[in-house]
This record gives sequence, C-alpha cells and structure tokens, in this order.
Amino acid sequence: MLIETQTDKDSPGVEVLGVEILDTTLRDGAQGEGITFSLADRLALIKTLDDLGVAWIEAGNPGSGRGEADFFRAARGVPLARARLCAFGATRRKGTSAAEDPQVQALLAAETPAVSIFGKGWDLHVTEVLGASLSENLDMISDTVRFCKERGRIVIFDAEHFFDGFTHNAAYALSAIGAAAAAGADCIALCDTNGGALPEGVAAAVREARAALDAGALPTYKWAGRGPALGIHAHDDGGLAVANSLAAVQAGAVQVQGTLLGFGERCGNACLAALIPTLCLKLGRPCLPSGGLARLAPAARALAEIANINLPGNTPYVGRSAFAHKAGMHADGILKTRRSFEHIDPALVGNGRRFLMSGAAGRSGLAERARKIEPSLTRDDEIIKTLAEKLKTLEAEGWQFDGADGSFELLVRRALGRYRPFFKIAAYRVTSEHPATGDLACSHGWVKVLVDGRYEVAASEGEGPVNAMDAALRRALSSFYPELARVRLSDYKVRVIDGTAATAAKVRVLIQSTDGETAWTTVGVSADIIDASRIALEDSIEYKLIRDRALAGE
Amino acid sequence: MLIETQTDKDSPGVEVLGVEILDTTLRDGAQGEGITFSLADRLALIKTLDDLGVAWIEAGNPGSGRGEADFFRAARGVPLARARLCAFGATRRKGTSAAEDPQVQALLAAETPAVSIFGKGWDLHVTEVLGASLSENLDMISDTVRFCKERGRIVIFDAEHFFDGFTHNAAYALSAIGAAAAAGADCIALCDTNGGALPEGVAAAVREARAALDAGALPTYKWAGRGPALGIHAHDDGGLAVANSLAAVQAGAVQVQGTLLGFGERCGNACLAALIPTLCLKLGRPCLPSGGLARLAPAARALAEIANINLPGNTPYVGRSAFAHKAGMHADGILKTRRSFEHIDPALVGNGRRFLMSGAAGRSGLAERARKIEPSLTRDDEIIKTLAEKLKTLEAEGWQFDGADGSFELLVRRALGRYRPFFKIAAYRVTSEHPATGDLACSHGWVKVLVDGRYEVAASEGEGPVNAMDAALRRALSSFYPELARVRLSDYKVRVIDGTAATAAKVRVLIQSTDGETAWTTVGVSADIIDASRIALEDSIEYKLIRDRALAGE
Repeated sequence: MLIETQTDKDSPGVEVLGVEILDTTLRDGAQGEGITFSLADRLALIKTLDDLGVAWIEAGNPGSGRGEADFFRAARGVPLARARLCAFGATRRKGTSAAEDPQVQALLAAETPAVSIFGKGWDLHVTEVLGASLSENLDMISDTVRFCKERGRIVIFDAEHFFDGFTHNAAYALSAIGAAAAAGADCIALCDTNGGALPEGVAAAVREARAALDAGALPTYKWAGRGPALGIHAHDDGGLAVANSLAAVQAGAVQVQGTLLGFGERCGNACLAALIPTLCLKLGRPCLPSGGLARLAPAARALAEIANINLPGNTPYVGRSAFAHKAGMHADGILKTRRSFEHIDPALVGNGRRFLMSGAAGRSGLAERARKIEPSLTRDDEIIKTLAEKLKTLEAEGWQFDGADGSFELLVRRALGRYRPFFKIAAYRVTSEHPATGDLACSHGWVKVLVDGRYEVAASEGEGPVNAMDAALRRALSSFYPELARVRLSDYKVRVIDGTAATAAKVRVLIQSTDGETAWTTVGVSADIIDASRIALEDSIEYKLIRDRALAGE
Repeated sequence: MLIETQTDKDSPGVEVLGVEILDTTLRDGAQGEGITFSLADRLALIKTLDDLGVAWIEAGNPGSGRGEADFFRAARGVPLARARLCAFGATRRKGTSAAEDPQVQALLAAETPAVSIFGKGWDLHVTEVLGASLSENLDMISDTVRFCKERGRIVIFDAEHFFDGFTHNAAYALSAIGAAAAAGADCIALCDTNGGALPEGVAAAVREARAALDAGALPTYKWAGRGPALGIHAHDDGGLAVANSLAAVQAGAVQVQGTLLGFGERCGNACLAALIPTLCLKLGRPCLPSGGLARLAPAARALAEIANINLPGNTPYVGRSAFAHKAGMHADGILKTRRSFEHIDPALVGNGRRFLMSGAAGRSGLAERARKIEPSLTRDDEIIKTLAEKLKTLEAEGWQFDGADGSFELLVRRALGRYRPFFKIAAYRVTSEHPATGDLACSHGWVKVLVDGRYEVAASEGEGPVNAMDAALRRALSSFYPELARVRLSDYKVRVIDGTAATAAKVRVLIQSTDGETAWTTVGVSADIIDASRIALEDSIEYKLIRDRALAGE
C-alpha cells in the first residue's frame, strides 16, 4: 500500500485513512491548449508542489522528445522534502519486449523513484486503435509493469479508459487491471480518459474493481492478499471531474490524480485546488501534511504565475472571488455571523475574505509582510493604513504584488519615508522599425538618466525594444553604479490584464532579476508595454542598489 | 405541476419526465465579479435564451433599483416563443403586510408571468441575520406567496440556504417550504446558497423534502395532494454545482436553476451549458425543445459576446477546447473510431471537433485538418509531407499552431500555392517615448502598405505601440478593404518562449480577432514583441479577407 494511515487529532487513537495526491500539471496539464512550461518553469513548479505537500509529481513523459531527458536530469537536482517524482510512459509496443522498447528505456533513464505506465482498459481501443489482440494487450501491461518493478521502481498503472471499458466489457477492463496487479503494480489509477463518466457509474466501477482485486479472482491473473491501491484520474468534460473523484474516494480509491488548477486536455483534469479542501475539511480524508492546506491558495497563485495565466477568480476555494461578498445583505450577514454566508473559513486554505465595493483589506497580513523591513510595524500603524489604501488603489488599476517581492519592498520603503531614489529616468525613446534604417538594428533606444544632479545619456540597439531600453539604461548608469554589471534579467513575463480591450488593454510586466546570489521580481503596469517594462526595470535596479546598501548596514 | 411529460421518441408510448431550465444569468449571474449588462445587453440575452429554449428567464430584481422598472417595461416588448420571464424579490419585511411592502409592489409591477420569491430556510439566518422570530418568518413566506398567487402569478419559492438549514434544523427547513407550499407556490427551489453542499447530502435532503411535500404532513401547514414541484439552485464553491444539480434531479427535482455559462457570485452558479447536455443525453431527461441542444454552443458564444468576456475554452461541451485533440495518438484514435476519444458527438451540442496542429500531430491529423481547405488531400500527398516538415521547423523556432487556427489555415493555403497576399507591409516604424514630444501621444507609428501596386501610408497614435501600429495598419488598408471596419481584436496574449534569455528572449504573440460572427486566432514569433505582433496582425487581416472570398465562392 502506498497510503499511510494517520491519527485523528480530534479523536486520539482513531486512525484516519488519508488520500494521496498526484499532481500531473507537468504531464497531463501541459496537454491543455495554450499551456507551455519552460525548463525553468518546470523546476520552479516542482518546488512549489513539494512545498504544498503533494505526495507525487508526475513530471513528464521521457519518451516524448529530446528536451525531456535534460529536464529529468535537472529535476534530480531539486531537493524535495516530501514529494516523489514520477515519469510517465506507455506500455511496451506490441511485438517487442519491454527491455527493447526505446520508450520504456527512456522511462527508466529518467531515474525517478516512481513511474506511471498507461495501458488500455477498453477492448475497443485495443483492437481498433492499437490494432493488438486482447490477450497481447494484457501481456504488454504485465511485461512492462514487471520490467519496471524488477528495476526498483514504484509502479502506478494508469488504466486508460477504464470506466468506458467497464461499461462496454467489464470483464476485460478488470482483466487489464488484474494483469497490472499480478505483475506487481503498487497502485492502479482508474482513468476516465474521455471525461464523460457520471459519479454513480464511477462509484460502482471502483467498488467492483476493489472487490475484484481484493478477491484476487480476475479472469486471467490470480494473486493473494489485498492487491494494489486504487487511484482515480478524472477529466472534466461533463463538469464532473471533482464529483467523480470524490465518488471514487468514497468507493475505495486512495490516490487522487489531477492538476492543481485543473489544466489539461480539452476541458481539463480534476482540479486539485477544488478537491483537496473538500477531502480534508468535509470528508475527513487528510491529503496534505500539517500546514499544507493553508498553503493552497498561495501555491495556486504561484502556479498561475509560472504558467503565465490569470488564475480564474471563480476557482473554488483559491480564486480571488471565492470569498468575495458584494456590498449589502451578504456582507452584512458575514459581519453578523461568518458561517451564514461562507461554507468554510477562507483562512483554512490560505485565501482571504473580500468585501467588494467596501473597504476592508487584510491589514494584519500587510503588517506581517512589512515587518520584514521594519520589525516594529503593527496592523494599527498609520503607515500600514496608508499602505493598505495605496495597495487597494493600485490593485484596482491592475497591479499585483503577490509575485513581485522586489516592488512590494520598495512600496513599503517609500511609505516608511526611508527611500532615496538612486536615479531617475528623465526621458527615453524606443523605436521598432522594419526594415531597419541605415546601419541601425530594427530596435534601438536611448535613455537619459539623472543621478545626483548629473545627467547621462546612452543609446543601444537590441533584440526587440525592451532589450534595447534595458541595455541603454544599464549603460547610462554604469559609471555611477558599476556593481550593476553583475545584474541580469532571468525572466520576463507579460500578461494582458483585460483581454477584451485587446491591443489597447493594460499589460502587467513581471521581471525577475538576479545578481548570481539572489533573485527578485518587480512589476510594472501600463497600457504601453514598453512603459510597463520601464517601470519594472527601474524597480529592479533600485531594489538591487537599496538592498546591497541595507545588507552593508548603510 | 410546471412540468409536462414528453413522449420518448425511441420508445413511443413511454412518457419521459422532462426537466425545466431556469436561467438566472440576468439576476444571480449579474452578481458575479466583473459581470455587468446594459439594458440592450439584457434584451439581447433574453432573445438568445428564448431561442435556445429555456423554460424560465429570471431577469432581475425589480425592487433593487430604478433601472429595473424600465428594463421590465422594455422586456415585455420582446416577443418570446417559449420562455417565460420571472421577476425576483424577497418575502415581505417583518412587521408589514405584503400589500404594503414596496419591494413586493415592485415585484408585481414588473408584470411578468412568474415571480421568484426568496425566503429563509435556515433558522440561524432568521434569528441572527433577519432578526425575526421563527414563526414570523413562516408568516412572511406564506403571506408573500399567497399575495402573489392571488394576483395571478406563477410563484417559484426560493428556499435560501435550504441545505445548510436542513443540516442544522431539518424540521424548520421543511416548515419553511411547507409554508410556501400551503400558500400555493407552484415550485419550490431548494438553494445551496453558500455552495458548499455535497451530492449525497443534496440527494438525501431533496428526497426528504419530496416525501414531506407529498405526505402533506409538515409541522405547521397541511394540504392535500402531491404538492408543488421541486427545483434545485446550486452554487459552485466546492466545484460541485453541476454534480449537486444532477443529484437533485435524480432525487426528484424537476426544475434546474443556473446560469448558462456559470456566472454568479463568488465561484458562480451551476453552469447550464455543462448540465443541459448531460440531462438530455446521459440521463434521458429532456430539457430543451426539439433542436435546442444543437443551438447550445452558439448560444454560449453569443452570451459570452454579450457579456464581453472570453468564453473559457475549457467550458464543458461548449468551449473551444472541449473537443480539441492534440498530437499523435489521440488524433489518430479519433480518426479510427470517433467514440474512442470523445464522450459525445460534438455536433449534438452545436460544437465542433478540432485537431490542434503540432509537428507531433502526425500526418493523418494534418491531412484531416487540411481537407477543410482542399478536400482531396490525403496523408501521403507531397504537400502534406512538406507541410509536416515545415511545421516541425517552425515549432523548433518557437511557433505554435495549437490555438492559432487562422495562421494554420494560411500556412496550408500557402503550401497549396493558392495564396495571393492581399497586401504587404512595405515598412513600419513604431515609437514609444516618455515624456511625449510636442503634441504626440507617448506611442505612435506609421505603416506603409502595398496593395495591387499602389502604396499607401498612414499614421496613428495609440495606447501603447501595438495599438498604434494596429490603428495605422487598418487606416492604411481601409480604402482598399472597407470590410475591415467590422473586424476587431478580441484578445491579445504574449508569451516569452525561453524565459532564461529574459528581455532578449523570443516572444510569441497570439491575437484573437472577430467580425461579430466568427472568431479566429493568429500567431507571430520574434525576438521583437512589436514585430511578433505585426506578424500576427498581418495574418489576422489576411485570414479575414481570404475567408470572406472563399465563402463568397470566389
């Protein structure tokens, strides 16, 4: 069994069967339309998921392309506190052995503690899509699972199309999972690959699968004992992935597969951000280590940042609107008695209550963050009140400081009156033109800076206008602050804030910078992408200069 | 009873109990953060919902403000084929009579065939939020329902917080609906107002409510006969609104309330676009008139257009990605046997299948997609082979045609040699500067186009450089192609392809355009964000011009 029992804190001595979470954002989630992750994104996401406390991270399909081997090599260097990595691949092809199948070789070469192997659980797919015989498919499953077990892997068998298969030919669907069980699979994940199953059907199939595995009495294979753990892998084509996953858990599944924000092919996978709190808080089935649940909303926001999407405000539990109350009756009700209009306390999942069109930001949280700069601050300080107002105004204009620690720190320092700007951009001009004029590159710019009463102008070409401006700005500042030579930009993200206004919409630019020792992120917002970039660049350099001096005790 | 039975087409003589749909987009949906409708929007939406075939349109709360009376007056002039309008309001206040309550007067003044009256079903709310006694609340319900019935209205009683109330004090929750039933309510909608219920709990409470109403044996009120119909009104705070609604229907509810796209407070209401097909196709509970189901996806797109939001691609059944198949195996499977990777035929709900194009897609999928342009193409044609190679090269450079159907179609047309460019951008220059020079805005640009041997130059200012270029390009082309006046950009997305190179990294720009009838997406890749936008803009306009001519048979 994969699952450890936990002791119920409220009733000592009572053991509670937990549920293990497998996040497949990096594998199945990356199949979602418009979702792509760079290598750096993927490594950052593994860290985020481990901090949250998921048990398994299905990180990719090593057999699918060249970049994957590099990724898994890099991923082995990420220290993980709890989560275990899992590489994903198919059963061996028909007519070959597992040892000779290059895709199985790639799966093992990823050197992850666990592997997920997917195989067909629906007879229609075996004969009409794979073109294999029904018995050959069972051998393909059995061989591949056994081969990976013999090489020391924890094996999760993903029974693709299990529920559709169970509907059309239950005996064969059970044979497929029986083949995996007999070959030593540690967990069998029952998949609703097409996403059209209904909760009742899922529950019934899981119960039958559990009973068949426990009895060890499946048509082709026999074994003794309780058999492997069961998992559920649901898709949301009917809007029922969360409900189907809960139904499966109540029917005996102990591993829940999904993606933190529901990314995935077509309508997406089961959204773990919606599932995890219900499992923990409403079904009494813990699935994160102590303290993990309160990190859920921050982890969801971090993932959205990494994926460069706007976290939909209406995402259950973790969305920005999930505990937003409009002025009037609901807000009044909340003030009278919280449970009157909230199904759970938002703090349990690391989210916050918001009153729309009325003022009550989280001053406590703000003071908490500001104390990193000035330890004496409390929620009732004038400065915190002013800062809360300022933040509210900025957020209404599209700013967001969640992921922009550098800009947030500058905001606090400015509010504290401890801020002396190191430079000022007096003017800049950036041009993109095609074809290029004379010997100039297509993008070029100049920047005029003012430092201690002295002006300096510098120009640069660049690959694109932002790059040209960045280069010109550094050049202009180099004689004043030679230490900036070590700073480089490590990531650059652009988000359109209001998609409906299209090219006239505001954009938010996030810039991550590093000096080789630490990294910091700054933000800029404007209708002009160049000016949004300028704001974030300016803050990035200011932050570096101010922090160096703070560290040096100046 | 509200509900008529229908005859099962497949088994003549068998009567099928249908389900009635109540759409509350204009009332509860308008409570969603960021959702607003003008009067014209609201009238257009009523028409759209009637065309779709919903039974009830809950159109607003006449007691909530001045604009509402005007709206209901205008709404009475909209000819409706099937749907009936419903105005929404609260029970009378404590200490007054229904006749004297201005809010109840406003409800009747709306002159709708039906009214929804909401009242408290949870004792906690009665005492702690309303500050009324438990028996007074029952009188408020009873008086208001009876008053509206006596004035000829069909009355739907919304039992607010019914499920939470049932959990905490079942007898009182049942008394509240009993009061409404005895006063003549035609339908009682059981509400999960806080959205935290689970399907099992919903099913159990609906069954008990049904049994109690049928027995006519509730504590306070008694009546004879079967009692009113039951409805379900679910919110999505646990990601379970769809599942809870289905569970309620299976337990005896015959009216389903929700919003077509799930708009609503916090995490939203039950999404009817996800519910309706499951009811019709999987549970055998028809809820739209003949032909209605095939209008579902167009209605969803029309609503998104009216609400001025992007219809999320992953919306079950009706989203753009709902039947989108990526890469290799899945696309191959679909071509072999459609049900292998689709839970329903997308045509049933008026949606379509899409093959997302990528180098990994395989030539079969590519040929399938290309056949929409040239029906004779097969996977073994030279052109398909060349195209597959070309796609692979472009993807290695950072292009992605997954979401860019417009650019993909142009790529195929170019490969077929059927492509005559409608214009060429001979040169452009875009400048961003701060502070602005003279009377110019901070961003301005000029574009020189070549059409049929004639040059045209136009300039424009803009909010940001891309907006300036877009405006200048359209202006330059307007004398040649006046039809472009109807095209507008509906979304603009930027993605940095390789974050590690930061501001010198390549960016991929996706532009979605619409002419009010259809939408298409185009892509551009460059190290220069301005040039990437230029490529996508150019393709967007080319696509519109070529498609209009193809449709006209030129």
